[in-house]
Amino acid sequence: MAATMSIILRLELDREKGSFGEVATAVTRAGGDIVAIDVIKEAKQKTTRDVTVRVNGQAHADEVVQTVRDIQYVSVVHVSDRTFLVHLGGKIEMRPKVPINNREDLSRVYTPEVARISQAIYENPDLAHTLTIKRNTVAVVSDGSAVLGLGNIGAAAAMPVMEGKAMLFKQLGQIDAMPVCLDTQDTEELILIIKAMAPTYGGINLEDIASPRCFEIENRLTEELDIPVFHDDQHGTAVVIMAGLLNALKLVKKDIKDIKVVVCGIGAAGIASTKMLLNAGITNVIGVDKEGAITKGKSYAHSMWDWYAEHTNPHQEKGALSDVLEGADVFIGVSAPNILTVDDLKKMNKDPIVFAMANPNPEISPELAEPHVRVLATGRSDYPNQINNVLCFPGIFRGALDCRATTITENMKLAAAKAIADSIGEDELNEDYIIPSVFNKEVVKNVSAAVAEAANKDGVARKL
Amino acid sequence: MAATMSIILRLELDREKGSFGEVATAVTRAGGDIVAIDVIKEAKQKTTRDVTVRVNGQAHADEVVQTVRDIQYVSVVHVSDRTFLVHLGGKIEMRPKVPINNREDLSRVYTPEVARISQAIYENPDLAHTLTIKRNTVAVVSDGSAVLGLGNIGAAAAMPVMEGKAMLFKQLGQIDAMPVCLDTQDTEELILIIKAMAPTYGGINLEDIASPRCFEIENRLTEELDIPVFHDDQHGTAVVIMAGLLNALKLVKKDIKDIKVVVCGIGAAGIASTKMLLNAGITNVIGVDKEGAITKGKSYAHSMWDWYAEHTNPHQEKGALSDVLEGADVFIGVSAPNILTVDDLKKMNKDPIVFAMANPNPEISPELAEPHVRVLATGRSDYPNQINNVLCFPGIFRGALDCRATTITENMKLAAAKAIADSIGEDELNEDYIIPSVFNKEVVKNVSAAVAEAANKDGVARKL
Repeated sequence: MAATMSIILRLELDREKGSFGEVATAVTRAGGDIVAIDVIKEAKQKTTRDVTVRVNGQAHADEVVQTVRDIQYVSVVHVSDRTFLVHLGGKIEMRPKVPINNREDLSRVYTPEVARISQAIYENPDLAHTLTIKRNTVAVVSDGSAVLGLGNIGAAAAMPVMEGKAMLFKQLGQIDAMPVCLDTQDTEELILIIKAMAPTYGGINLEDIASPRCFEIENRLTEELDIPVFHDDQHGTAVVIMAGLLNALKLVKKDIKDIKVVVCGIGAAGIASTKMLLNAGITNVIGVDKEGAITKGKSYAHSMWDWYAEHTNPHQEKGALSDVLEGADVFIGVSAPNILTVDDLKKMNKDPIVFAMANPNPEISPELAEPHVRVLATGRSDYPNQINNVLCFPGIFRGALDCRATTITENMKLAAAKAIADSIGEDELNEDYIIPSVFNKEVVKNVSAAVAEAANKDGVARKL
Repeated sequence: MAATMSIILRLELDREKGSFGEVATAVTRAGGDIVAIDVIKEAKQKTTRDVTVRVNGQAHADEVVQTVRDIQYVSVVHVSDRTFLVHLGGKIEMRPKVPINNREDLSRVYTPEVARISQAIYENPDLAHTLTIKRNTVAVVSDGSAVLGLGNIGAAAAMPVMEGKAMLFKQLGQIDAMPVCLDTQDTEELILIIKAMAPTYGGINLEDIASPRCFEIENRLTEELDIPVFHDDQHGTAVVIMAGLLNALKLVKKDIKDIKVVVCGIGAAGIASTKMLLNAGITNVIGVDKEGAITKGKSYAHSMWDWYAEHTNPHQEKGALSDVLEGADVFIGVSAPNILTVDDLKKMNKDPIVFAMANPNPEISPELAEPHVRVLATGRSDYPNQINNVLCFPGIFRGALDCRATTITENMKLAAAKAIADSIGEDELNEDYIIPSVFNKEVVKNVSAAVAEAANKDGVARKL
């Protein structure tokens, strides 16, 4: 599937030779969807209009533009792309909370009086949480090594994603987030840098950092810093999958302790999801990657797989994906497109639950899967049950900042998953609605409260 | 001098026993200046009011509060400090430039469409200046090693200063500035970190980093990065001193090429000022530090002094400050309180120009100096001619960002100094007004235009 996008064509139309209606017809015939028209200039003979057209990707855009160019009485002044337009100059800005109107204001927020605040923090470092932005600020840190589906595109190219994330932090969680894109992919350098930066922030959101480097970085920072460190690609995904699973299990009326889960794709998200599954009480989890099911006794290329072999697959099932799917209640795919077949689904237990999250193309096409599963979730917004990290990170950081947590514990993540799941009432719950909308305002409220409560219980909250 | 500060006393007053007028009289008698009164609650017998009182420092505040407590019919509910109040939760916030109202907005600023922007930057890295916040964003970086007059108070305690600076960047220069306080004071680590962070920013403002580390850091970063790096404590101070000097010389009608300048205090600001003086065409500059005048042939503790000896003091004048002041036209002090005497001033040439910038107490008290000098400037806001970096950094970065400069050249700094000086018309210029107000809105406009023009001339502008 090509992504939907919008273009804006500025057209100059000669009224004496033809009508706008014909232009609209031509655009529609070429498959373009006209969603807005703005009149820019009207003159007796000529009219200039901005026409916003939704199209299916760049090739389609070119086609639509050519169709319009071919109309003799129309000239295309220019074509712009709404996505590029909204990115001009970046998407976020830093603003003073209060204006500096006069010398008295200046002396209070800056020299000489600011020295009293600095002195106070120097004498009592805890005051940094009260008297600076630390209380409400998160760094969104990436090395640009695993950006969306694009891969290792580097720090500069990762910025638009981190800016988008900062927008969501503020809009959904009222959190001030600063993008920090780092031009190094050396694990030790990244750890050194993020540790040194920490005084400014109340939390660190790691983003789009390649596996297995991401594990070492997160573990070390979690040990060495007194603020929460959260690799969203791992735990955000795991939390939202768990939320969806909790609701799906309510529908099929299975006990979480009894189910068999196959996780396909044992990278960052797969490992984090598995840890959550185990923590939630599921014992029969089997991991599958390119080499088949992960079992004890083999030697693996990276150390996380050794951990994985040690803690999963209690019955030491061997073989390919389709072998271990026999009798499975749940399939969780965070792997590659089209590796799951209808025959595989048929081997699963009654009422199969399938999370096919490969992006943009799932492990099995929803159209193929649907007749054979009870609940289907994907990473996509154009099918029901989208597993979207946006449901997790604003609320989990809001909760952690509110209670001034030193870290994010497994219980806090599980509390977040339950709160997301419970944002859908039992009466609303159905096969096509196991996950709330990212625009559901209750989610952040519920998640943050649950997370802060769990932090308190776990003794990691500095503010009760 | 103790810094002025404001406190707010919440008072509950028993109307039957006394009047508010008597309270006001008592506060005034104790030296407090009542600047605002807010009625919080009025009842028949009692009234609750917030009284804002300007006082001279904490000891005076305690005194005023005690005076009020001593009044029998008044109870002091609480006392708050306006400076602390304005710092609660920090002084800046990050905001989205556009709201995300629906799924279409979300898909445009975040996944999936943001991938097209990232891809575009990956293919053409120059687009980072157009499609991300880089175009308008500056990092305000400190290691907390030389914060204001407080010294080495560390990264966390430096935050309020950097936040204040970020406020000024936005309010005066429409620049988005992010504080970055780093918890290391190792030169190589600082260089490594700031280099790695660079992709996010269009410029780096170094702040409150101790000498001599600050020189190495700035030099290396300037060499290795393609965005401007500017240590404000050095060059901001130098630019504003130079602006003041240019105007002072107009008043005394001396040619800049003919003057003798003594610079006292050869630290970061002293060295940067000297470089600007030399670059502006002054040949007779003599540096003085604790050991006396800096001359060739001695061996100095740090390498910047060797450079200094090589490039200044053409007549190899030796001796203490008072020796080399003989016949000097200008004294520039960035050193320590009360090291300059009236006798020293008497040795200077006709129409002495004195910049006594030690903070908070100048090299000579303005009251003592005034009868013996033609022009006097200090770092303080309670005397005329305040040399304040706030006049420089918003405009110089605005200009550098506007033309997408790769660096800040000596000519750009000199252009900034001239633009600040020329913000005062020849007809307005007088001994008490050689430096414009920090609230003069023309300054940033003039400085940024002059800086961009100089960048173009020097061939360091990427956008003409």
